[in-house]
Amino acid sequence: MRATYRDRIRHAVLESRITTPERAASLFRNAMTVGMSGFTKAGDCKALPDALARRALEDGLKLNIMTGASLGNESDGMMALAGLVERRSPFQADPRLRQEINAGRVMFTDQHLSETVEQLRAGNLPPVDIAIVEAIAIREDGSIVPSTSVGNTASFVQQARQIIVELNLAMPLALEGLHDIYIPGDRPSREPIPLTTVSQRIGTSAIKVDPDRIAAIVLTDSVDSPSNNLPPDEQTQAIAGHVVEFLSGEVAAGRMTPALMPLQAGIGTIANAVLHGLVESSFNGMTMYSEVLQDSTFELLDSGQLTFASASSITLSEATYRKFLDNVDRYRSRLVLRPQEISNHPEIVRRLGIIAINTALELDIYGNVNSTHVNGTHMMNGIGGSGDFARNAHLSIFVTKSTAKNGAISSIVPMVTHVDHTEHDVDIVATEWGLADLRGLAPRERAARIIDRCVHPDYRDMLWDYYRRACAAGGHTPHLLSEAFAWHQRFSNSGSMQERVVQTA
Amino acid sequence: MRATYRDRIRHAVLESRITTPERAASLFRNAMTVGMSGFTKAGDCKALPDALARRALEDGLKLNIMTGASLGNESDGMMALAGLVERRSPFQADPRLRQEINAGRVMFTDQHLSETVEQLRAGNLPPVDIAIVEAIAIREDGSIVPSTSVGNTASFVQQARQIIVELNLAMPLALEGLHDIYIPGDRPSREPIPLTTVSQRIGTSAIKVDPDRIAAIVLTDSVDSPSNNLPPDEQTQAIAGHVVEFLSGEVAAGRMTPALMPLQAGIGTIANAVLHGLVESSFNGMTMYSEVLQDSTFELLDSGQLTFASASSITLSEATYRKFLDNVDRYRSRLVLRPQEISNHPEIVRRLGIIAINTALELDIYGNVNSTHVNGTHMMNGIGGSGDFARNAHLSIFVTKSTAKNGAISSIVPMVTHVDHTEHDVDIVATEWGLADLRGLAPRERAARIIDRCVHPDYRDMLWDYYRRACAAGGHTPHLLSEAFAWHQRFSNSGSMQERVVQTA
Ligand SMILES: CC(C)(COP(=O)(O)OP(=O)(O)OC[C@H]1O[C@@H](n2cnc3c(N)ncnc32)[C@H](O)[C@@H]1OP(=O)(O)O)[C@@H](O)C(=O)NCCC(=O)NCCS
Ligand SMILES: CC(C)(COP(=O)(O)OP(=O)(O)OC[C@H]1O[C@@H](n2cnc3c(N)ncnc32)[C@H](O)[C@@H]1OP(=O)(O)O)[C@@H](O)C(=O)NCCC(=O)NCCS
Repeated sequence: MRATYRDRIRHAVLESRITTPERAASLFRNAMTVGMSGFTKAGDCKALPDALARRALEDGLKLNIMTGASLGNESDGMMALAGLVERRSPFQADPRLRQEINAGRVMFTDQHLSETVEQLRAGNLPPVDIAIVEAIAIREDGSIVPSTSVGNTASFVQQARQIIVELNLAMPLALEGLHDIYIPGDRPSREPIPLTTVSQRIGTSAIKVDPDRIAAIVLTDSVDSPSNNLPPDEQTQAIAGHVVEFLSGEVAAGRMTPALMPLQAGIGTIANAVLHGLVESSFNGMTMYSEVLQDSTFELLDSGQLTFASASSITLSEATYRKFLDNVDRYRSRLVLRPQEISNHPEIVRRLGIIAINTALELDIYGNVNSTHVNGTHMMNGIGGSGDFARNAHLSIFVTKSTAKNGAISSIVPMVTHVDHTEHDVDIVATEWGLADLRGLAPRERAARIIDRCVHPDYRDMLWDYYRRACAAGGHTPHLLSEAFAWHQRFSNSGSMQERVVQTA
Repeated sequence: MRATYRDRIRHAVLESRITTPERAASLFRNAMTVGMSGFTKAGDCKALPDALARRALEDGLKLNIMTGASLGNESDGMMALAGLVERRSPFQADPRLRQEINAGRVMFTDQHLSETVEQLRAGNLPPVDIAIVEAIAIREDGSIVPSTSVGNTASFVQQARQIIVELNLAMPLALEGLHDIYIPGDRPSREPIPLTTVSQRIGTSAIKVDPDRIAAIVLTDSVDSPSNNLPPDEQTQAIAGHVVEFLSGEVAAGRMTPALMPLQAGIGTIANAVLHGLVESSFNGMTMYSEVLQDSTFELLDSGQLTFASASSITLSEATYRKFLDNVDRYRSRLVLRPQEISNHPEIVRRLGIIAINTALELDIYGNVNSTHVNGTHMMNGIGGSGDFARNAHLSIFVTKSTAKNGAISSIVPMVTHVDHTEHDVDIVATEWGLADLRGLAPRERAARIIDRCVHPDYRDMLWDYYRRACAAGGHTPHLLSEAFAWHQRFSNSGSMQERVVQTA
């Protein structure tokens, strides 16, 4: 795999900017804002995070680090523990960084992933000083060809005073041509984003940049970290089954064709498993307009059921990743990678009429969803793109297992301890027990349907009891404020949300 | 004002469909879905609500009633008390209907106002059987010219099997030409909505319809109900002052010009007062892209500071309404009324880069906003368009008085009892005490700033105390679940959120 960089730096002068990670790291000053490539572990920088962390240990460097989404290679944890990360946005998924965030030592700004660069360009956030970008090549005109994700990289590059390119020799040049770079114009006189079909290309295949701003090039040679999705299990298969059955009903009712509507599926084990479930379905001619492509997308491409997939990154298990990198040409005509601003843009999501499938950490009887905060306080990952999709989708589906921690937690509770998605943005809820179609229902009707269809039997009577007593107290959205979080408090105190800890057989 | 209808029904055959409200009301069958015109009291039907309520009393008729937003003439309360209203969406603001909703007797579906007709067309809601539409004229080709609002009327008309027109002779024909009717195409192959400036016209000036579907025409002769906004007071003036000062800072920092960005202002006394505050500002060349135009808009048009206003309805006090109706020609070139789907569309709001100013019922220390549910349970009005604007705005500003009910309630609480807008959608918070600029901050920083700048002094120490103890317990968004709603419970029990009821001097 070790290759020369000659066919990858096609701009004569730039070759002289090749340097070591340490020298590149010396460009940074305290409190700078840094825009890094990387989206759910794909296309992240492999060398600079380490070099910057060493500077933090040596001279106390602190940075405001922005990315596309989460980084791989445990970079996020390593940088945080070194004390490098003063501020972090817009998403993360690292256990050690999470710890620093929850301890209040890292200021984390959790954002809708379509909005970060919009806010940057509007001046609502401090501007990016330096962009660090993984690339597979630099073209004759200096333009940068990203690797396995686009994320926020194009806008970071557009805004940064200086750019550091990490040229990754381990990434096949065959990836060139996969990207479609488009940055919306300035407001208030912006033109419509011209994208009207999932497969349409509206931009350039590389990130345009004045080569003078490329301050350093660092050579790297390692692939992305693999995803750590768990394989489908009995419960996720049941959830997938309910979703497939529901969608079949939509087709039967004439509300969509067997091609469905463009699909979005969130990160994580459960959403991946639901999409995997479509492999056994009779849907055909499907398309994806999503944020991350996981293993399930490639299964559907391989089965021929999926005709095209658009996203901002590709995050795969080791085996699927290998297969993809070795066969990029086979997939090329059916894939495009876009900036996350475009993959998640409300304008496009609403225009295309997407079926959005995202995962809830917990949800309440009215269908408000918590995707981020354990016990209402402790950040898990972040809201990611779930809000961009759920708000604007043709159908917004949320999936979750009905319980967590071996049944000690009910994922459906009287009131969620943190709201990421309000009931208005949640059309369908599915657990392994069943699916609740909430379209057009009032809150009291939503509650009855969710309790009836989705709650684990161990918690069903408890929820009926809460709901009935709340209704007696009245209101459009009945609640008993004195008990709304009693389940969470019970879990904190006794290790279970159950009223008496039931002996498991 | 009593005029003949001859110049208002320009289609020869249709004249014969003129009938009484009672006969028109006989077209309805039980459980039908009815789409009514009307948006925040403007352009609502004046005759059919009464005739339908009488049917409910006589033969128990029950309907699923959809509108643009709230109705005037106390129609909503009257219909609800007659037992006519089985289901109601997407917004209301009537004390008697509110009571029925909160008692669980009317199933109310509270919706983002841009989404109702999208969901109708997608088949996610039962289709409209009959549309009842206030009009000022019916053209030669049968197309319907709406009155003081457009709301959801165009899509209701497009979908309904039968249409009843209420031809309102009290509305001046001068309103003709004010409207711009555009309905987005079907998904997934929809084209971009071509609107790129506030004043652009992209549709037709009347609602196209096959005249055969116009089943009845009823003549009416009364104007809209006036708005009941209270005049600005010391507190709302202070809030307006903080917002104007903040926007001046944005201009000074070069982030916008003195024309600002297109403005949206929510319904109600406070948002109206904030906009009124702009009259004394030095901003000029401003535009509005809003949902409702209130008195303040006309003050700004009259002062010459506002060059153009786009909305879905016009809801005014009696005096301003009179002035407007008598001088439509003076305002005509600076106004347009659009379907609420377009006035509130995420695609357009995001494209134009709107400054959104909406009102919170309560907000919490992290800047999550409750706009709808008193005590977490009892519906006030509905989310309206606030979510459409706040989510997609260039700047999302929420305003509120720091206390309600003579200081017995703090509008800023440890945790909101219901979330309509998550912290991600709230950039700026202002009360009479000050303004908190939350852009780019992490939750802990947001809390410190909100408590410091916006909270009433009577509650400030209590909130600092809660916040500090919550931080000690940890988390990205620190909370003490056992106390999160203690203030609300104290108010319910003792009539005040204060720990000891302080003697007011
Ligand atoms: C919500 C989310 C964390 C679920 O991830 P997942 O891998 O599908 O689901 P899992 O069931 O494996 O849950 C992940 C963890 O949360 C825990 N968990 C699940 N429900 C829980 C609950 N109600 N309370 C506490 N913990 C819970 C699980 O036990 C598991 O913990 P572990 O890692 O210690 O085993 C993930 O989807 C996410 O971060 N979503 C937010 C971002 C997003 O939706 N993006 C979409 C656009 S890409
Ligand atoms: C939130 C909203 C009700 C505020 O209305 P307003 O007229 O500006 O504000 P007011 O301060 O007069 O408050 C209205 C009522 O709520 C009460 N109120 C305010 N804050 C309260 C709180 N925290 N708890 C309980 N009641 C509260 C007031 O006392 C007042 O009651 P009253 O009618 O009995 O006097 C109104 O803006 C709304 O319905 N918003 C949601 C829809 C929306 O934002 N649309 C925007 C796009 S158009």
